[in-house]
Amino acid sequence: MSELDDSVVLRRTSELSFDAEVSDAWGIGGIPNGGYLSYFGATALRQVLPHPDPLTVTTRYARPSKPGPATIECEVIKIGRTQSAGVAKLLQDGKECFRVTATYGDLDAMRGPTVIAAEVPPMPPVDTVPPRFGAPPGSSFGARVDLRFAPGSVPFLDGGVGPMELGGYIRLIDDHPVDPFALLLFADAWPPPSLNGVEQRVWVPTIELTVHVRRRPAPGWIRGWFRTRFLIQGRLDEDGELWDADDQLVALSRQYALLST
Amino acid sequence: MSELDDSVVLRRTSELSFDAEVSDAWGIGGIPNGGYLSYFGATALRQVLPHPDPLTVTTRYARPSKPGPATIECEVIKIGRTQSAGVAKLLQDGKECFRVTATYGDLDAMRGPTVIAAEVPPMPPVDTVPPRFGAPPGSSFGARVDLRFAPGSVPFLDGGVGPMELGGYIRLIDDHPVDPFALLLFADAWPPPSLNGVEQRVWVPTIELTVHVRRRPAPGWIRGWFRTRFLIQGRLDEDGELWDADDQLVALSRQYALLST
Repeated sequence: MSELDDSVVLRRTSELSFDAEVSDAWGIGGIPNGGYLSYFGATALRQVLPHPDPLTVTTRYARPSKPGPATIECEVIKIGRTQSAGVAKLLQDGKECFRVTATYGDLDAMRGPTVIAAEVPPMPPVDTVPPRFGAPPGSSFGARVDLRFAPGSVPFLDGGVGPMELGGYIRLIDDHPVDPFALLLFADAWPPPSLNGVEQRVWVPTIELTVHVRRRPAPGWIRGWFRTRFLIQGRLDEDGELWDADDQLVALSRQYALLST
Repeated sequence: MSELDDSVVLRRTSELSFDAEVSDAWGIGGIPNGGYLSYFGATALRQVLPHPDPLTVTTRYARPSKPGPATIECEVIKIGRTQSAGVAKLLQDGKECFRVTATYGDLDAMRGPTVIAAEVPPMPPVDTVPPRFGAPPGSSFGARVDLRFAPGSVPFLDGGVGPMELGGYIRLIDDHPVDPFALLLFADAWPPPSLNGVEQRVWVPTIELTVHVRRRPAPGWIRGWFRTRFLIQGRLDEDGELWDADDQLVALSRQYALLST
């Protein structure tokens, strides 16, 4: 078992519900990371749907979660031949903290044409890039994720301002294999690129995050590139790409978030 | 009342449910357009939530809808001070056809910094671009939407192949004002840009569509630009931007879809 596996405690209490325990091991400033929560909900939903892989996963965060006991209630939307869909809601103190609404399928059973109109984000070799975590000191998340930022892409960490994009390499410290579910965590493991665009120190809570898992990733480092194009009156989009060690696009993410001072 | 208003028939039967009638006026090949359905669900949810504007709307299509009677069941996720969230599921013959999961707020109450890292898609003046609808002949949708494609962006209409991107101008024929809800329709009113990338004639059913409404649009034509970057083994992303007559970005869309021969 890996640290990530250990951090998703689920005890099934009926066909569609679970008792759960939200870990304190993936927190940033004491609040569980949104990618970890998305991973958590998708892992529960995996037990309810017959297909193995998350294909498109939307997580909508209604209230902050906290480490400790929770319940998960699932709903099956559809079970089809090639894909199935459902919902997993996580509740604490009787209130919904977030819900994952997702479609599952089998990434190994895809058939059809391939046309790629994009390129791998250019990045120097990983062993030339020093590790540097972008979250506030003391974040438990930072102890479990090895992040190597592309040079020059995180000026906000030094009090500077620059383009609202950043990226680099990512893996889990304990070498948990990178699987389609881990990509949900990796899609929200980076500092918000919008922090490069504003001078204030802000918090960027995610309202909705959608991840498309497009391929089963090869073993090794994942490269990520994240960009905010429109910060409008404190609301923003954030688009991400995750590429595997074989130079294949493995996931796309987009979130809607707000700047909070 | 406009044609679009007339096409959303809702009779409330309880606090959270409606009897509904899906119109045959927004069909492509007899199947109601996905943007119309998203508009339909969001309009019902509007009656259940206290905030006026859709901010982020995810529509997950489980089964094809058809013109005729339906029921809508809503769920409230959260009612907060500045935003609220909920679900509207549309059922026909007792089965869920699609569900809208959305967060609403007030576009006029947004406060915070604005930084834009994108440009308006370049396009010639609308009065120099001839109307040409890209859907199969006889589609009722085509009679209600005035689409003007950017020159050269739809080679597939003439049997050609080209980059997987297209765009142009759009408005409703009957001059229904462009409001935040109409943007949900406009986000899925275009032929799939992936059709430019493959030689076969295919159908491109949407599995999940998320639209972020970012500003209240100015009156007039909306410009759209849509792009598929990764067609991988028959599955694809499609990203869209909608800009208003004042050169402001008003909505972003992303969908996950499949090519079906």
